[in-house]
Amino acid sequence: MTTLKDIALEAGVSATTVSNVINNKWQRVSPETVEKIKNIISRKNYIPNMTARTLAKNSSPIIGIINHLITRKSGGFMADPFHNTFMGSIEDRIRNKGFFLMVRTVEDSRGLEEVFRNWNLAGMIFTGLFQDAFFDDVRKMQIPYVLIDSYIDSPEVCNVGLEDQKGGYMATRYLLERGHRVIAFTSPYVRRDGVVEKRLLGYMQALSEFGVPFNPELIFEQEISISEGVRLGYRLSENRNITGIFSTADILAAGIMAGLRKKGVRIPEDKSIIGFDDNYLCQITYPRLTTIHQDAEEKGIVAIELMIAQLMNKPIRERKIILPVRLVERESVRSL
Amino acid sequence: MTTLKDIALEAGVSATTVSNVINNKWQRVSPETVEKIKNIISRKNYIPNMTARTLAKNSSPIIGIINHLITRKSGGFMADPFHNTFMGSIEDRIRNKGFFLMVRTVEDSRGLEEVFRNWNLAGMIFTGLFQDAFFDDVRKMQIPYVLIDSYIDSPEVCNVGLEDQKGGYMATRYLLERGHRVIAFTSPYVRRDGVVEKRLLGYMQALSEFGVPFNPELIFEQEISISEGVRLGYRLSENRNITGIFSTADILAAGIMAGLRKKGVRIPEDKSIIGFDDNYLCQITYPRLTTIHQDAEEKGIVAIELMIAQLMNKPIRERKIILPVRLVERESVRSL
Repeated sequence: MTTLKDIALEAGVSATTVSNVINNKWQRVSPETVEKIKNIISRKNYIPNMTARTLAKNSSPIIGIINHLITRKSGGFMADPFHNTFMGSIEDRIRNKGFFLMVRTVEDSRGLEEVFRNWNLAGMIFTGLFQDAFFDDVRKMQIPYVLIDSYIDSPEVCNVGLEDQKGGYMATRYLLERGHRVIAFTSPYVRRDGVVEKRLLGYMQALSEFGVPFNPELIFEQEISISEGVRLGYRLSENRNITGIFSTADILAAGIMAGLRKKGVRIPEDKSIIGFDDNYLCQITYPRLTTIHQDAEEKGIVAIELMIAQLMNKPIRERKIILPVRLVERESVRSL
Repeated sequence: MTTLKDIALEAGVSATTVSNVINNKWQRVSPETVEKIKNIISRKNYIPNMTARTLAKNSSPIIGIINHLITRKSGGFMADPFHNTFMGSIEDRIRNKGFFLMVRTVEDSRGLEEVFRNWNLAGMIFTGLFQDAFFDDVRKMQIPYVLIDSYIDSPEVCNVGLEDQKGGYMATRYLLERGHRVIAFTSPYVRRDGVVEKRLLGYMQALSEFGVPFNPELIFEQEISISEGVRLGYRLSENRNITGIFSTADILAAGIMAGLRKKGVRIPEDKSIIGFDDNYLCQITYPRLTTIHQDAEEKGIVAIELMIAQLMNKPIRERKIILPVRLVERESVRSL
């Protein structure tokens, strides 16, 4: 069996150099040498044993996607097409960089510690993280991490986010411009400093610009799932005053549309609706859903870039990346 | 820091017994002792280092979901809601049994070897596996594995499958009974001995029973994605003879419906369609999709049961579990 030393011997370099290449510490080795070593590794079919390396280096080439707070009750973190695209994007990219993907739902700090101490992960990507005790524990672990859609206000934290408030503003303004004045805001439970709160702020900002008083009775929060959406559609069908609906997730909007239709409410004739995400569900709904676009695939790409930069100790120019939103017009909104 | 020996000392048992409990070899320890040891572990906040254990035992408490053949081109293995529910079900269950989930797309035997030799996984769950050279390599690894939806005909192999042929038969017969005679079969590429082939056999069986000759021009194969489905819907809209469509996946059916609608074809007035899976997309489509139901969550549960039984060296009564299908009637099919 080929050993690391065999590779080093043939390449005319030290075992440390080969090890650096295998461990993706490319910056310490010249590009030509990296190329040469990779060719030998490939030709000799050499596969390093990660477990042994992990123990020696105290870090594994595993990147964990840690899902905090997203409960099984709502179908788990994989139920929403956004997460699928995002995770698929990450799995695809880290594979080519020599990393493995571990997926874990974590409910509390102990769950987090269990993952970290067991596997000495190279890095972690967190979805659904807030500024609380759990975050303090993440920091203490002292490994590279990237937050997704977090509003934790700390200069050293890497975060890939979105123009959430702007998205909420654009969606609501789009309805207001078309004459809607009684606009329901539908979302998962609003948490302080989460994306939903920002989208709600955008909703309030647009209302305020148009001189429409904020009415808390138009805020509908619930678990995110198709069946919950359908039920909410039933409820909304009973309120004839509501002409416009903004949903902070397409999957919720799709459920609401199905529920409204079942009660004989026509879209957009009777009620208009606008979503958020622009995933493939927008093509399936009838009529096709007007929505706020975000690029879930790009979120994964940027998250991995920030992760790799940390792993390679490269300088990071911008730790907070905010991806843009835009409105995609389809057929679910009409002018009054 | 608490060590394994501390736990053993306090419980009044040997270190081996504690180790057995941690490694889920419960059958070697009495239930009372397991309970006692787990309580001490919990109270002392003891977390074993899996990496060290892995090296010692030559096996990690990681279960891999290995996706063979499902290419990124079609959106990757996470694009279909079936896979999400299935994976979510597995992640949820192995977590409570002390295992971690690794997710990996593997293109060839080298990719497989890379995962296996690096991590010495406790077990692997394969989706999309056929009887070929790749499968021979899986066998050589000599670790517990469970196949999902495979038609590999080998007595020792654990497989969780579905009544695929019956499902294809039921769907087609449902259309035939309602007067349809020109029925399109739409699916991903048909491979020998895969689920799609079995569903196609069911389609042919039903046609034959009704004395309808098989017409290969009515077979439409392509990548599975919404956009491909929409394009196929355009094509199908041009063929006025086709009154019935059977899609072997709801996600494909949903795309076809969107494509047909865009071309002004009404469902079910102009064309009827029936899907396969019964995932949440059926609630979103307009009209709601009649389909063949399968239980993706149950598939995950049964797969993990078969895996755990192998890991614990328990006798396995039935290695081939075939889950039932049933037809769910909604509004996408009409009688001619």
